[in-house]
Amino acid sequence: MLGAMMKQELLISSLIEHAGKYHADTEIVSRETNGDLHTTNWGETAIEARKLASSLSKMGLDQGDRVATIAWNNHRHLKIWFALSGSGLVCHTLNPRLFPEQLIFIINDAGNKAIFFDKTFMPLIVGTREHLKAVEHFIYMGPHDEEVAAAVPGAIFFDDLMGGGDGDYQWPQLPEDTPCSLCYTSGTTGHPKGVLYTNRSTMLHSFAISLPDALSLSASEIILPVVPMFHANAWGIPYCAAMTGAKLVMPGPGLDGDSLLGLIDSQKVTLALGVPTIWMMLLDAAEKSGSKMETLRRNVIGGSAAAPSMIATFRDKYDCDTIHAWGMTETSPLGTANMPKAKHADLAPDARAALRLGQGRPPFGIDLRIVDENGVALPHDGVAEGALQVRGHWVVDTYFGMTETAMTDDGWFDTGDVSTIDADGYMVIRDRTKDIIKSGGEWISSVDLEGIAVAHPGIAMAAAIGAKHPKWDERPMIVAVKADGANPTEEEVIALFADKVAKWQIPDAVVFTDAIPLNGTGKMLKNKLREQFGDTLIERGV
Amino acid sequence: MLGAMMKQELLISSLIEHAGKYHADTEIVSRETNGDLHTTNWGETAIEARKLASSLSKMGLDQGDRVATIAWNNHRHLKIWFALSGSGLVCHTLNPRLFPEQLIFIINDAGNKAIFFDKTFMPLIVGTREHLKAVEHFIYMGPHDEEVAAAVPGAIFFDDLMGGGDGDYQWPQLPEDTPCSLCYTSGTTGHPKGVLYTNRSTMLHSFAISLPDALSLSASEIILPVVPMFHANAWGIPYCAAMTGAKLVMPGPGLDGDSLLGLIDSQKVTLALGVPTIWMMLLDAAEKSGSKMETLRRNVIGGSAAAPSMIATFRDKYDCDTIHAWGMTETSPLGTANMPKAKHADLAPDARAALRLGQGRPPFGIDLRIVDENGVALPHDGVAEGALQVRGHWVVDTYFGMTETAMTDDGWFDTGDVSTIDADGYMVIRDRTKDIIKSGGEWISSVDLEGIAVAHPGIAMAAAIGAKHPKWDERPMIVAVKADGANPTEEEVIALFADKVAKWQIPDAVVFTDAIPLNGTGKMLKNKLREQFGDTLIERGV
Ligand SMILES: Nc1ncnc2c1ncn2[C@@H]1O[C@H](COP(=O)(O)OP(=O)(O)OP(=O)(O)O)[C@@H](O)[C@H]1O
Ligand SMILES: Nc1ncnc2c1ncn2[C@@H]1O[C@H](COP(=O)(O)OP(=O)(O)OP(=O)(O)O)[C@@H](O)[C@H]1O
Ligand SMILES: [Mg+2]
Ligand SMILES: [Mg+2]
Repeated sequence: MLGAMMKQELLISSLIEHAGKYHADTEIVSRETNGDLHTTNWGETAIEARKLASSLSKMGLDQGDRVATIAWNNHRHLKIWFALSGSGLVCHTLNPRLFPEQLIFIINDAGNKAIFFDKTFMPLIVGTREHLKAVEHFIYMGPHDEEVAAAVPGAIFFDDLMGGGDGDYQWPQLPEDTPCSLCYTSGTTGHPKGVLYTNRSTMLHSFAISLPDALSLSASEIILPVVPMFHANAWGIPYCAAMTGAKLVMPGPGLDGDSLLGLIDSQKVTLALGVPTIWMMLLDAAEKSGSKMETLRRNVIGGSAAAPSMIATFRDKYDCDTIHAWGMTETSPLGTANMPKAKHADLAPDARAALRLGQGRPPFGIDLRIVDENGVALPHDGVAEGALQVRGHWVVDTYFGMTETAMTDDGWFDTGDVSTIDADGYMVIRDRTKDIIKSGGEWISSVDLEGIAVAHPGIAMAAAIGAKHPKWDERPMIVAVKADGANPTEEEVIALFADKVAKWQIPDAVVFTDAIPLNGTGKMLKNKLREQFGDTLIERGV
Repeated sequence: MLGAMMKQELLISSLIEHAGKYHADTEIVSRETNGDLHTTNWGETAIEARKLASSLSKMGLDQGDRVATIAWNNHRHLKIWFALSGSGLVCHTLNPRLFPEQLIFIINDAGNKAIFFDKTFMPLIVGTREHLKAVEHFIYMGPHDEEVAAAVPGAIFFDDLMGGGDGDYQWPQLPEDTPCSLCYTSGTTGHPKGVLYTNRSTMLHSFAISLPDALSLSASEIILPVVPMFHANAWGIPYCAAMTGAKLVMPGPGLDGDSLLGLIDSQKVTLALGVPTIWMMLLDAAEKSGSKMETLRRNVIGGSAAAPSMIATFRDKYDCDTIHAWGMTETSPLGTANMPKAKHADLAPDARAALRLGQGRPPFGIDLRIVDENGVALPHDGVAEGALQVRGHWVVDTYFGMTETAMTDDGWFDTGDVSTIDADGYMVIRDRTKDIIKSGGEWISSVDLEGIAVAHPGIAMAAAIGAKHPKWDERPMIVAVKADGANPTEEEVIALFADKVAKWQIPDAVVFTDAIPLNGTGKMLKNKLREQFGDTLIERGV
């Protein structure tokens, strides 16, 4: 016996139809690549997504074909997302911060047939074009442009496609398992691997992350996704904004503190999302300008651990509640978000603040476990540390183009992270498996040490790494970048740890450097730091 | 090409597993049928649901079998829900307020093989048992009880089933289209009809109604579902509470104002949900006791139109934000909920309050339209009134046991309601098709007239009906119940309408009566009122 409810597929096309119908005049403001501010709304975006889809279907692209974008967060990029995924094509976002060789590898690996590009990335297209085997169409994201026409012979212009498009185009009724998008991991720990999302996985992720205990999205929000659309789908915000009818503010190429601050204050942004490095720049700009970011009620920090001092600054100085979230390209990306429970309502402010520092609980739809080296599950007691594994409706099964599953024999995905989980389900990332510091057989969390170091006002950025040690195998050390005009000493920094960690966890050395290398999503490249500074203790002759 | 994400079915069993694992010690407090207060939590509830499911599987019940409950909102009822739906049986909630003949019809129509019953309803079981054709098991919701054993020979005891159950029972991996529950409409407009929900429809409904712009459910809420579990699934709250890890406060049989007030204050309830008649009693009790219901931040009113004066009282006197929602048994039930958008943030208080009076916007997953008598779609301009039609993931396709679809030729479900929809998607119920007053070819909304009448402090309840009229066919009249100790006159009541509606919409008569007949879900039975008072104007010799 089957139930007797209407059966509709879970399709991304239905998101843009919903937003276009019920939130037609809700604005989408975006910073164009040339610096102008552009305003449209969900109603127009729905029409233009249909027009674009109709034009693409005339270009010989077949269902399942991968079409790449190399672009900022802006209104054209948004229309491209819905046009591609809605019409059965796969939207493949490229991270322009990768090295050209990595990009060439990824584009060829994905077999992209077309690429949409923003003006910023025209040189990259020109420089790599001869290596891009399958790409038939290069589509410039703007009106007709002589410079582009000259540099990229045969280029098609987005605004021309729009002109020839059909606003009454009907979205195909696809099966919900149809893939909708493709994103490669950022390559911190190895070669980038592609994750192929489906309409269904994306839709269920959109529901879950819009819930009050995840990102809490609604039509009363004005959202600034600073996290790029090429970085784990901008954490799903474009989809969820359409689902909930939120106003979107797209920052385009302006990711510096002043540009973001300007958008927050002028557009009355209520919620902004991004990685820690972005917030450092924003806090700097706000401090200098004196803006209190009055409208910003909440921000979401993820991608790397948010330092406790950063969360405190947002709370105490800007009355902005930080939601600390954890996720991966492989988890669509949301895995956990940190919101309190009813029983925490009466906690003292300090205890409540401490609870909010970790990466939080999984929403319904995600299940977590931690295991030891033998794959045996460890208790959820907040103490046991183990390899974090995850499963759920929006977790990768098999990487794009691979035949072997990415799952363990019993159906879990190993994250490459080390964490604890407590009885209430709160997960704390201790480290990445490859970055955790192993001193005499004991583990020391680099995340903890970094959080303590950056709380020092004289330190702008800090990485904790394991330095080689003849007796202990590894000992913790700090590589730090000084804040503008500050001049902290090694002793001063080491002293910070005295009452905050066990004695054997206190770093043995602090070295200062001009800049810490970051990857395409703002993560510290610790393997590079280990190459550069790993011999520090040996050289000091311990 | 298929996408490469993990594929899991959307199953109700995964809800209780999630709550049991991530919200184990979150409380579920319930008023027992004997008046005691009982406390358990999600962890124990998950174990007991598994135990019960294992016991039921030994009783010869097969997948797809319908098992009925006739019970209050309490912890055993909750465990029964998850045990039945999780194990592939269909949980059929019976409304004990129906007449015995209606109940017998429904139980036989559904082919129920077993019935769980609360003590309150033992007489009903005793009185109807001989007519219940297919029922093999009568299960009393409590420990062994001599009185029950004597009155209901062969009765099984819930707590015994629990004792013999297996807490490690594994939920079956069902296809998500498997039916999970069955509920009959309340029979206001005709014979009750059964709606057979699926795991999938229920899961998608749970996601959608937990969103911030619907009921906004999270682990920080303490929820009092006053709406019974036998009335459109308690609006989905038991499922959503498990999904989001909310604390539940189940009122049992105590639905009077004082009992509810006591629970709200002692359990620090933050959100309560129910039909208008319930709130009248609660407001009365709060007024008398002087309680300010400090913790109650929000309430949800649905099932019948919430009077503007009631919403205002909650807001102004109790600082409680009312979410006005519309739904039907056929829509799982949520169809719309009224929350503002970002663009309404700067509205003047009056305009904002006016916006909040209607039944609100559909969440993603529900689509609405209004049509004229010929089925032609009308504009969403806030003015055109038409038959409200709906479609979506949790809307009925075919009633239980019927072969003919419940949908129109083009796939919509006709609600039997008349409404307007504005450009922002806000829907306002003007009336039920059968209750709207037709004066000289023009429609007059009984909802509007009733809202004005009950704002008079001397009126406890009011119904507007069409009275027969020789010239105009129908003219509006009010049937009213006076408030305790008050004595309003007909002239006084008619004067209320002078500046609030067009002149031709002012009621021609007001008659007072002792009580307005209500159906099983608290709705006014207007057909009964029309029988009794429909000739008033003719008798008055107009
Ligand atoms: N809130 C957080 N705190 C700490 N670490 C986080 C947080 N959020 C994400 N991470 C880290 O980011 C990782 C996921 O990043 P992403 O999927 O962007 O690519 P990557 O893992 O850096 O690249 P690759 O897998 O190719 O090496 C997680 O596994 C985790 O290590
Ligand atoms: N907020 C609301 N305002 C006005 N009417 C409402 C509201 N919510 C629900 N309703 C009314 O309740 C109806 C749905 O009720 P329900 O499914 O419980 O059974 P019923 O329609 O009363 O019974 P039957 O269909 O058997 O006659 C809607 O069609 C609508 O008329
Ligand atoms: Mg990774
Ligand atoms: Mg009905």
